[in-house]
Amino acid sequence: MKFRAEIDVMPLKALLDPQGKAVTGSMKNLGLPEIQNVRIGKHITLEIEADTKDAATTKVDEACKKLLANQIMEFYEFELFEN
Amino acid sequence: MKFRAEIDVMPLKALLDPQGKAVTGSMKNLGLPEIQNVRIGKHITLEIEADTKDAATTKVDEACKKLLANQIMEFYEFELFEN
Repeated sequence: MKFRAEIDVMPLKALLDPQGKAVTGSMKNLGLPEIQNVRIGKHITLEIEADTKDAATTKVDEACKKLLANQIMEFYEFELFEN
Repeated sequence: MKFRAEIDVMPLKALLDPQGKAVTGSMKNLGLPEIQNVRIGKHITLEIEADTKDAATTKVDEACKKLLANQIMEFYEFELFEN
């Protein structure tokens, strides 16, 4: 079966996010001071071939740990959809 | 009311995504050849103060158009949650 994974990789909440801070500042200059606390991470989509949803979950988790997220500075979460 | 927006900004499907292509290649080297078609974009979270959900939607849409997404190369979608 083919699954589609939607993965979010975000900077840990305890860490500063300088890119997000810069964008929060720009919002004010653009006339959108209502917008606060911008945080910027990665959104990753991928396709995976696996026998079961559980097997796909294990593989995607492995991909996140090995390559997609740096767990010292980031956390990840994902959802799997049957394609 | 305070809302939280979860925004995804992704490269347009018609465009090549060289970063995603590189990661797809690396998956094979990591022993995960089941993973294909990786595409990498941005995930942005922010907080917004607005009277209604409709007003918040308009503001977040404006922020995406003006600053967060480059509509020539990217598309965006978002969801709003009441905080």
